[in-house]
Amino acid sequence: MHTIGIDVGGTEIKAGLVDEAGRVLESARGASNRDDLGALVDAIASLAGSVTPAGGNPAGVGVGVPGLVRPGTGRVEFAPNMPALRGAAVGPLLSERTGLDVEVRNDADMNAWGEFAAGAGRGSSRLVCLTVGTGLGSGVILDGRLYEGASGHGAEAGHIVVDPDGHACGCGGRGCLETGVSATGIVALARERIDAGDATALSVAGGALTARRVRDAAAGGDALAIGVWDDVGRCLGVACASLINLLGPDTIIIGGGVAAAGAMLLDPALAEARARAYPPLFAACRIVPAELGQDAGVVGAALLAGRRARESSLASPL
Amino acid sequence: MHTIGIDVGGTEIKAGLVDEAGRVLESARGASNRDDLGALVDAIASLAGSVTPAGGNPAGVGVGVPGLVRPGTGRVEFAPNMPALRGAAVGPLLSERTGLDVEVRNDADMNAWGEFAAGAGRGSSRLVCLTVGTGLGSGVILDGRLYEGASGHGAEAGHIVVDPDGHACGCGGRGCLETGVSATGIVALARERIDAGDATALSVAGGALTARRVRDAAAGGDALAIGVWDDVGRCLGVACASLINLLGPDTIIIGGGVAAAGAMLLDPALAEARARAYPPLFAACRIVPAELGQDAGVVGAALLAGRRARESSLASPL
Repeated sequence: MHTIGIDVGGTEIKAGLVDEAGRVLESARGASNRDDLGALVDAIASLAGSVTPAGGNPAGVGVGVPGLVRPGTGRVEFAPNMPALRGAAVGPLLSERTGLDVEVRNDADMNAWGEFAAGAGRGSSRLVCLTVGTGLGSGVILDGRLYEGASGHGAEAGHIVVDPDGHACGCGGRGCLETGVSATGIVALARERIDAGDATALSVAGGALTARRVRDAAAGGDALAIGVWDDVGRCLGVACASLINLLGPDTIIIGGGVAAAGAMLLDPALAEARARAYPPLFAACRIVPAELGQDAGVVGAALLAGRRARESSLASPL
Repeated sequence: MHTIGIDVGGTEIKAGLVDEAGRVLESARGASNRDDLGALVDAIASLAGSVTPAGGNPAGVGVGVPGLVRPGTGRVEFAPNMPALRGAAVGPLLSERTGLDVEVRNDADMNAWGEFAAGAGRGSSRLVCLTVGTGLGSGVILDGRLYEGASGHGAEAGHIVVDPDGHACGCGGRGCLETGVSATGIVALARERIDAGDATALSVAGGALTARRVRDAAAGGDALAIGVWDDVGRCLGVACASLINLLGPDTIIIGGGVAAAGAMLLDPALAEARARAYPPLFAACRIVPAELGQDAGVVGAALLAGRRARESSLASPL
């Protein structure tokens, strides 16, 4: 059984035809649209068509979106960074266009499902997957089910408070994990320190400041950049300690574009989590990098749609 | 069906005979023993006997203890404040003494179960119960089951980090919720401010500083004490916001001796949680005081033992 996975971002949409083992058989990318729902649905439907081979008969479509989704409705209820999605009945609209069952979820939930079903989280009973990119998304999987919480909105670990007096967060709160551990947070911290007067290789280079540039500068030995990554990693470790003490996960997966920094982020995070979490709970938890890279969202969306298709066929065998 | 509930504290043990509706039919109290397991088991067995009426045939015993317990084993694995319990097979020892099935859990889990089954959390699908006393214990109930986490240790909300640079915590971490929101935290904060030189009604009174004295001083209009409770309440609200964003509970219950301060603690907590949590998740969650008071642990332990007895009888009807 093959299914289609779609990963909707603010600038780009990724699509893939995925088999039951999580292998991406066909893939395509196209431009997204932040503001126009009609154009966005057109783009998604077109990409779904382009990864469907002639005569192919995918069993369903999974779609990950940057917003809060009420499961079972396919409707997006909260999408701070993408106006086109606000209140949008993405599931019904796409189902009508494609003639297929459509499962819509938060994109970080889809990443978590991908890693759980076919990546670093296989076999986990209590999984937390943190996706560190422009912001910080998360998914929690308990006993083989995505944790849905209030109204099915999922687990928003990016908005646990790590510094009550910290920076304002896009969610309206303050000092959320996302303000410290994200590309946005990395750039803001580097900017603060540069403005405070530290003259370093990073500060004198031209061009816009990005998390990637801070990463490259740290890899090149720049002291300010190394300090930024160390502090961001320790902040991630504080959050891991809280998650370990609260949820007792067996696995925490760190994924997303920022996680590509590897040991620069994970080493201080591990050290900080070890120093803070209950020893028996820390010992019972692996903190590991994601395995699926940029495909996690597409694979997770497709495999979650596949699970839904199997459950539907079991529920109504005729 | 009646069952016995036992609530083991560091200085006192409470026992009760409880009916299926959570009513306490008989109750007794006795001295605890922090250091001697034999004396502690004797005291528990004696209290269990004293609440059992002649000819009574309770269906089981539930015991809440201040430590981490691996469910199904009745063995305490971690008990920082009560050496007698460390590594103790409390369940098997008591079962041998009483001839009854014994269910042992963390005391805050028992409080949570009491409030869920017979108190402020009735009907909840996703409940967080915080017990604020000398420390801060917690229990999480999802879909009618106590959340067990790694090795069944439960959810330790008292050890989520609310201030990474905060005070050292008894768990070995730093800035845990318990360091700010607990009788210990209240006294420490009041002491800090008194030592900083604020001369107030509270600071000039004689006698040891206790959370109760800080409460009474606040009720009497003392500015320093009012400020302490306000800050403690806001710290509790920060943690509630994190719990709401992460778990999307429908109910957060605030119980324990410190919660008897009522609005002095809850009003700033609610205001802070409202200002920080995702609006749709905050709107879906009640933050309410506990209803069972000091009986919560006894009632919860007895009702959890009752549930176990019913499940056992269903599993083996003969």
